[in-house]
Amino acid sequence: MKVTKFGGSSLASAEQLSKVLEIIKSDKQRKFIVVSAPGKENPVDTKVTDSLIAYHDAYVTGAELSEIQNSIINRFKRIIEALQINPKLIDIITKDILSLSQLPQEDNPYLYDTFLAAGENNNAKLVAEYFRQNGLKARYINPGQAGLIVSNEPQNARILPSSYDKMEKLREYEGILVIPGFFGITADNHICTFSRGGSDITGSLIAAATSADLYENFTDVDGMFAAHPGVVKNPHSIKELTYKEMRELAYAGFSVLHDEALIPAYRGQVPLVIKNTNNPSHPGTKIVLERSTDKNPVVGISGDDKFISINMSKYLMNREVGFGRKVLQILEDLHIRWEHMPTGIDDLSIVIREREMTPIKEKEILTYLTHNLEVDEVSVTKNLSIIMIVGENMKSHVGVTATATKALSENKINITMISQGSSEVSVMFVVNSKDEKKAIKALYQAFFKE
Amino acid sequence: MKVTKFGGSSLASAEQLSKVLEIIKSDKQRKFIVVSAPGKENPVDTKVTDSLIAYHDAYVTGAELSEIQNSIINRFKRIIEALQINPKLIDIITKDILSLSQLPQEDNPYLYDTFLAAGENNNAKLVAEYFRQNGLKARYINPGQAGLIVSNEPQNARILPSSYDKMEKLREYEGILVIPGFFGITADNHICTFSRGGSDITGSLIAAATSADLYENFTDVDGMFAAHPGVVKNPHSIKELTYKEMRELAYAGFSVLHDEALIPAYRGQVPLVIKNTNNPSHPGTKIVLERSTDKNPVVGISGDDKFISINMSKYLMNREVGFGRKVLQILEDLHIRWEHMPTGIDDLSIVIREREMTPIKEKEILTYLTHNLEVDEVSVTKNLSIIMIVGENMKSHVGVTATATKALSENKINITMISQGSSEVSVMFVVNSKDEKKAIKALYQAFFKE
Repeated sequence: MKVTKFGGSSLASAEQLSKVLEIIKSDKQRKFIVVSAPGKENPVDTKVTDSLIAYHDAYVTGAELSEIQNSIINRFKRIIEALQINPKLIDIITKDILSLSQLPQEDNPYLYDTFLAAGENNNAKLVAEYFRQNGLKARYINPGQAGLIVSNEPQNARILPSSYDKMEKLREYEGILVIPGFFGITADNHICTFSRGGSDITGSLIAAATSADLYENFTDVDGMFAAHPGVVKNPHSIKELTYKEMRELAYAGFSVLHDEALIPAYRGQVPLVIKNTNNPSHPGTKIVLERSTDKNPVVGISGDDKFISINMSKYLMNREVGFGRKVLQILEDLHIRWEHMPTGIDDLSIVIREREMTPIKEKEILTYLTHNLEVDEVSVTKNLSIIMIVGENMKSHVGVTATATKALSENKINITMISQGSSEVSVMFVVNSKDEKKAIKALYQAFFKE
Repeated sequence: MKVTKFGGSSLASAEQLSKVLEIIKSDKQRKFIVVSAPGKENPVDTKVTDSLIAYHDAYVTGAELSEIQNSIINRFKRIIEALQINPKLIDIITKDILSLSQLPQEDNPYLYDTFLAAGENNNAKLVAEYFRQNGLKARYINPGQAGLIVSNEPQNARILPSSYDKMEKLREYEGILVIPGFFGITADNHICTFSRGGSDITGSLIAAATSADLYENFTDVDGMFAAHPGVVKNPHSIKELTYKEMRELAYAGFSVLHDEALIPAYRGQVPLVIKNTNNPSHPGTKIVLERSTDKNPVVGISGDDKFISINMSKYLMNREVGFGRKVLQILEDLHIRWEHMPTGIDDLSIVIREREMTPIKEKEILTYLTHNLEVDEVSVTKNLSIIMIVGENMKSHVGVTATATKALSENKINITMISQGSSEVSVMFVVNSKDEKKAIKALYQAFFKE
């Protein structure tokens, strides 16, 4: 049994929905269908979710609502008419969209969530009705009925552990269930959304709770590539990679899936496949717990910019018990997430994402390091990029790092830092951002072309 | 003006002392002479300091003392007679050695320190007398007179900041001053020793306080080699290296000098030279604050064994604020000094020296990681060695890491971890200890032979 999730671009138009219908029809294992809100039909189009945000904002600021309400309703109407679905659904959706402007504004922490969730919720009704009219035994089920009970944290809902047992019962339903993604219901019956990109979370939770054989995630790409197609021309597509590899690649620039969304499926040991609604015969990229070894130790190369490093040196630093801990403590006190901490003997650097830093925090840190920790030297390096070469098989291949460093040095790329952790799933290079693309090209050439 | 320190082997016999005399005579800049206690005259000999420890132990346990007293006295006597120094000195030293057994045992935290310091103290008197009888204007000066006032921390004395001004006045003395190394005087007039190896500290403190032009440290080797002569056959000797490079090399196996001893000279910006009493015309190895660039980016390669790593992985570890800090906190609570912390995305390893770990501490850590930090996997890897390639010029040379990793992979040496910090003074490799020597040879070959 499979859980099949469709992203916004797969549901943006009647044409896309007809592809979705064919996909569902072609495999009887596809029992749980999780849907996003309709995405952009064309590049200048607006996602329904973005229109709902505008609707919410207009409502709370007391602006005129009819124009934005009509644009949302018309979006659904166009799809319903084009697919020749029972027009009664237009009335249902219209009523639902208009009813949002009757919600209490005061003491209502779920107002924003309720607006946003209307995109997925109405689209799930639409998809279920469309399936039914085309001969499938399908029904819409809302997250409350499905047992998806979440914490009272608006825009950051978490599943309650007790939900898993309730959701397991979904297996007993007959036919196809169409479930809106992105939100759950709180114990006191409010709509509460996951963090943005959260339709993937719904699919992942259902896959884990029902112990699905596979979680299919339909997007508008043929899966993942060994390097970013914007940097490397026609990169290889990846057939199979592990959750760990996926995480390491996602960390530095690969962003097909919201990686927190994968936790339930990972913990539930459900493999995942990323497929293309527009090219469903392509096998896509499968994400598994363990994979068979491959000749090539490297599965992918990714890169991401906007990192900075704080570098400090202090003579005999490493004799000082607690030095590193104190450095991490000041970061924690300032709510700064750090990424890496390469150490020499008397040197220590902290690599963080640029967005974590503000001028005032930077000043605070430098003052603390100089005055409290009495470092000899401290500096901040900006415009850094992290390049990751990833592959679980690297550990059984001597020489991956040699190949990588050779490729970089032959291309005159200075490596600011290297870190190869004991997991040996990845090697991380920090380079100046101006060299990022050149580095990815050089590494791709070294591991996939030679 | 130079501060010149002689180690125990340079002062072990009349023959050695005559070399010391020639060294002092040959350069009028050598004004402050810091001496250790007589070391081993031959491999089966006992260092005077070790005899003094035995003497102390016999005294506190109430054992017979005359044999150990005589052996210490005779050691000095033999040197004095062979050098034909005024025999009155024998009486002075005899009285001093015997007087140690009159010291109060109770409520005397400085008892051990006073016994130990007698080696350096009497030897300084001997050296001064020898110089004087050979036409040098020399005098013995004890640390109290010299202004070397220290904290009340037996066996771990630290200089009091106010001492620097007093010691600066040593410049005004005429002639050569011979100062015993290894101890200072507390504000309440007790003898208090530095940590072991502390004669180097005395020299370093005097060099810094007097703003010496050079701190000469005479040993029994021609300076430092680019790799350990026990591993690499006839390695190059190092002409010049920086304090930073020295520290990085000393960290992993190079141990000519006690590195804490170098702090005062480093902070006082006094260059240091390591020379050989038995081969004084050899230029030795100079340790400087900054050095001119060299064609070879690598100055030395060192290695040390007996490291272990604690490896942990947890899905989405790096989203968790405070994770790394908590890991370091448990180590700090257990008084464990850590060395390196390489990180992947969801992986973190801590490299520590084996001696820092006990079975009970290991159990404590693993329980904490599993139960409190809820890691997915945890393991401990033993028998690791750290190899360092060191050189301040590495930062301006692209390709050092490439050359190193190539050399290691061609020799089928698996690199468990790599860390190249932002200082770029060194690159650290962690390998299995069975590969340590092979790795050092391969790296030496790559950087010094090709």
